[in-house]
Amino acid sequence: MSKQSRILCSALQHLVMSAEEAAAMIPAGANVGMSGFTGAGYPKAVPGALAERIRAHNTAGGQPFRINVLTGASTAPELDGKLAEVDGIEMRLPFQSDPICRARINEGTMNYADYHLSEVAQYAWAGFFGKMDIAIIEVVGIREDGSLIPSSSVGNNKTWIEQADKVILEVNHTQSLRMEGMHDIYYGTALPPNRKPIQLTEPDQRVGELYLRCPIEKVIAIVETNAPDRNSPFKEPDDASRRIAEHILKFFDSEVAKGRLPENLLPLQSGVGNIPNAVLEALDSGDYKNLTAYTEVIQDGMLKMLKSGTLRMASATAFSLSPDGIAEFDKDIEFYRERIILRPQEISNHPEIARRLGVIATNAMIEADIYGNVNSTHIMGTRMMNGIGGSGDFARNGYLSIFMSPSTAKDGKISTIVPMVSHVDHTEHDVKVIVTEQGLADLRGLSPRQRAKAIIENCAHPDFKPMLLDYFERACASGRGMHTPHLLQEALSWHEQFEQTGTMRRE
Amino acid sequence: MSKQSRILCSALQHLVMSAEEAAAMIPAGANVGMSGFTGAGYPKAVPGALAERIRAHNTAGGQPFRINVLTGASTAPELDGKLAEVDGIEMRLPFQSDPICRARINEGTMNYADYHLSEVAQYAWAGFFGKMDIAIIEVVGIREDGSLIPSSSVGNNKTWIEQADKVILEVNHTQSLRMEGMHDIYYGTALPPNRKPIQLTEPDQRVGELYLRCPIEKVIAIVETNAPDRNSPFKEPDDASRRIAEHILKFFDSEVAKGRLPENLLPLQSGVGNIPNAVLEALDSGDYKNLTAYTEVIQDGMLKMLKSGTLRMASATAFSLSPDGIAEFDKDIEFYRERIILRPQEISNHPEIARRLGVIATNAMIEADIYGNVNSTHIMGTRMMNGIGGSGDFARNGYLSIFMSPSTAKDGKISTIVPMVSHVDHTEHDVKVIVTEQGLADLRGLSPRQRAKAIIENCAHPDFKPMLLDYFERACASGRGMHTPHLLQEALSWHEQFEQTGTMRRE
Repeated sequence: MSKQSRILCSALQHLVMSAEEAAAMIPAGANVGMSGFTGAGYPKAVPGALAERIRAHNTAGGQPFRINVLTGASTAPELDGKLAEVDGIEMRLPFQSDPICRARINEGTMNYADYHLSEVAQYAWAGFFGKMDIAIIEVVGIREDGSLIPSSSVGNNKTWIEQADKVILEVNHTQSLRMEGMHDIYYGTALPPNRKPIQLTEPDQRVGELYLRCPIEKVIAIVETNAPDRNSPFKEPDDASRRIAEHILKFFDSEVAKGRLPENLLPLQSGVGNIPNAVLEALDSGDYKNLTAYTEVIQDGMLKMLKSGTLRMASATAFSLSPDGIAEFDKDIEFYRERIILRPQEISNHPEIARRLGVIATNAMIEADIYGNVNSTHIMGTRMMNGIGGSGDFARNGYLSIFMSPSTAKDGKISTIVPMVSHVDHTEHDVKVIVTEQGLADLRGLSPRQRAKAIIENCAHPDFKPMLLDYFERACASGRGMHTPHLLQEALSWHEQFEQTGTMRRE
Repeated sequence: MSKQSRILCSALQHLVMSAEEAAAMIPAGANVGMSGFTGAGYPKAVPGALAERIRAHNTAGGQPFRINVLTGASTAPELDGKLAEVDGIEMRLPFQSDPICRARINEGTMNYADYHLSEVAQYAWAGFFGKMDIAIIEVVGIREDGSLIPSSSVGNNKTWIEQADKVILEVNHTQSLRMEGMHDIYYGTALPPNRKPIQLTEPDQRVGELYLRCPIEKVIAIVETNAPDRNSPFKEPDDASRRIAEHILKFFDSEVAKGRLPENLLPLQSGVGNIPNAVLEALDSGDYKNLTAYTEVIQDGMLKMLKSGTLRMASATAFSLSPDGIAEFDKDIEFYRERIILRPQEISNHPEIARRLGVIATNAMIEADIYGNVNSTHIMGTRMMNGIGGSGDFARNGYLSIFMSPSTAKDGKISTIVPMVSHVDHTEHDVKVIVTEQGLADLRGLSPRQRAKAIIENCAHPDFKPMLLDYFERACASGRGMHTPHLLQEALSWHEQFEQTGTMRRE
């Protein structure tokens, strides 16, 4: 297939240029909306060329050259890594997972605001983040009429194109043209007071269009690329993940038996990572059939479930596949195209839809406290890991919210069940179930003290259980409030001790 | 008007009995769903009679007699107070504001779980709280067909009647029959996977029925009462509340000028209390016209705004009026009936609707921290005040979330801006604006450290500002994570010092 054949709009063909030429059009201080979600569908060339330009500029001295980078979610070394390396990002939102970016954030040289992923499009549209200057969007191809075949993630691309003054397109020849037809770009959103119901009642329903609209006059550059997404190898679930998955499967079975979940469950939302993948594997090896997923990201596990029939279809906003997963997807793309729908993240994560469909939200966490508050973002209360991502969208509005983690981290030196979390991303009001490899605590209908007993008993590691019980009992005996008993001077001491000694254990 | 005329269903008339006889039908351990929301429309007689029965039972010794009490939201001394006094409540949810109840909760003799008010109906229906045994519902009258004219609150009444095995009705002759026609009981809800879009796109749209359906065979008792709602006198806003209101009005004006809010704003949600009332008064004395409210509760301020034309209409689930407000409402009920709609709380607070309408959520808070986390429920991290109520429903899904408090409490001994909140109900991801009488901090698009500067600068009391700045600067210099700088050993020390010395001040 010739390169030319992916840019079919004759009015745009003269805009093909090098990444360096395109990057030269981005002014310092610009608000730049880029494509990209969980390492899929991000621009591969222009960010790196811009980083080189920034490096040269800053070496020459003068006013530092920085831009604000808004994306769908996480990207890859070619984008976040390169721009962070040259200190080229002033403000980053709404999500990242890049090591260099993270280091910048935690050393205080990059501003970062992590937002619920469903909300970013509306806030950008409403002007809460300021004017959007430039959109840089990876696509699979440009059609005769200038509309765009979306790539392996949709993210906020619709909004970036609409809100930006100017658009730079990257046409990636490595992305399969056969993805055409998988996407569903909803154009029915509006700012209040003009919003209408989103008439989506099933995960497999289509409510939008196959292509991204793009006004021809906004396009200022087209760069052709030929590079794969950031595809991390798939890791087999470890023992803790498998045990967590077993507890969850048992819980699902029991809920079905009690009539509190339908036989084919409810649409699954599955966070990214080893534990969620283990849950998917466990579901795939069990008796469930014809399940659906209404989630953010298609991982390897979901491809297998689609093949086996455990999963009837999956709706998401992006892929996040291993190289093997990509090969499997490419091999059988016609099969998957019938069973996967990629939507804008404001729709994949929309509160209205998550609530209506009754999503079962399963997400990893960093730590939970004995009262059921969950920290998904901060290491020891101060250092950003990745961000809240979509976990709040689904946990807050779904039917069930399940948070998962091994009961310890760092070779057993950290207890992930603590007296008080060092940062709260999901409050006691929003957390329904907590699971570790030790067991599952069903918090529904429990008061804080009842929750504490359930979480310590079922979820804490045996090495930390006596310490947690001791804390809880002394807090109850302290004469302070008995609704949520705490010893304030000690509540965060486990984290403090870890910072000072490298372990939460007490000998 | 004769008493008989309010019970028009002949098949039910023989069930009229005393409160004591009705209370005798409630078994120990029962899950009881009661009407009542912000002191409106709660049963006036049966709970008290049940409390007397419990007192007699417990005086006689043996197994303690307790029930689980589920309501819409807060009730009154005749319900929460009396049942708490005799230690008759095992589990209370989803909200209370009663002094005796609160004391029980905080001394550890009553379990309490505070839930987002929009979620209670669905969780009860799904069986998350166990089987509902009995519903006790105040109504204005019973129609020929057995359907019920709702009272001054709707709350969870639809769900309680549907889910309970048996229903006890209280027909309150003090509630005006002329309220008939104000209600809109939506019967389109379902459990997933059978949910449909709620086709409500304007606050004044009706999507339901005027009456509560009630299967005649479920009714086991009817008790006639003649008692007013808990109507607290209206307090004139104090100086701090007025200044908070001024800051908010200025913010609205500026948002309209920038095109980020329409000229007639967006539907207002207003929490209950002095500060929200002051904001309503300020709005009423300004230039805004034809506003709408999509909120939980109709307070005195809203009646005035409806009269003046500032407010075109108001949708809520309950009244919370002063005696003067009640008199005004009664006097002109035909006027108000055209302009007020009372809905079930799952609809008044529904995430789908709050997001679609783009509600502006203004709620009081107990404290906020320098990074924008808000505590709405816990005094010094352990003692329950009231509960989260609907604040999370609106703040999480609305267009703007505004949290308000004077910058100090307890005669200046408490700073309501603290290094770290002692409990989190609204996370940094959900809080857009914080206001005290000192000023307003607009947190949209800011990173945590940027937020800290804005909050300390704009919202903190001058007496505490240097201490907050000192904390923030030392946290930044500590060498820990610079995303959300904290000194963990000191983060809660302000609260701890207050507990020990009665002040957060340092001399």
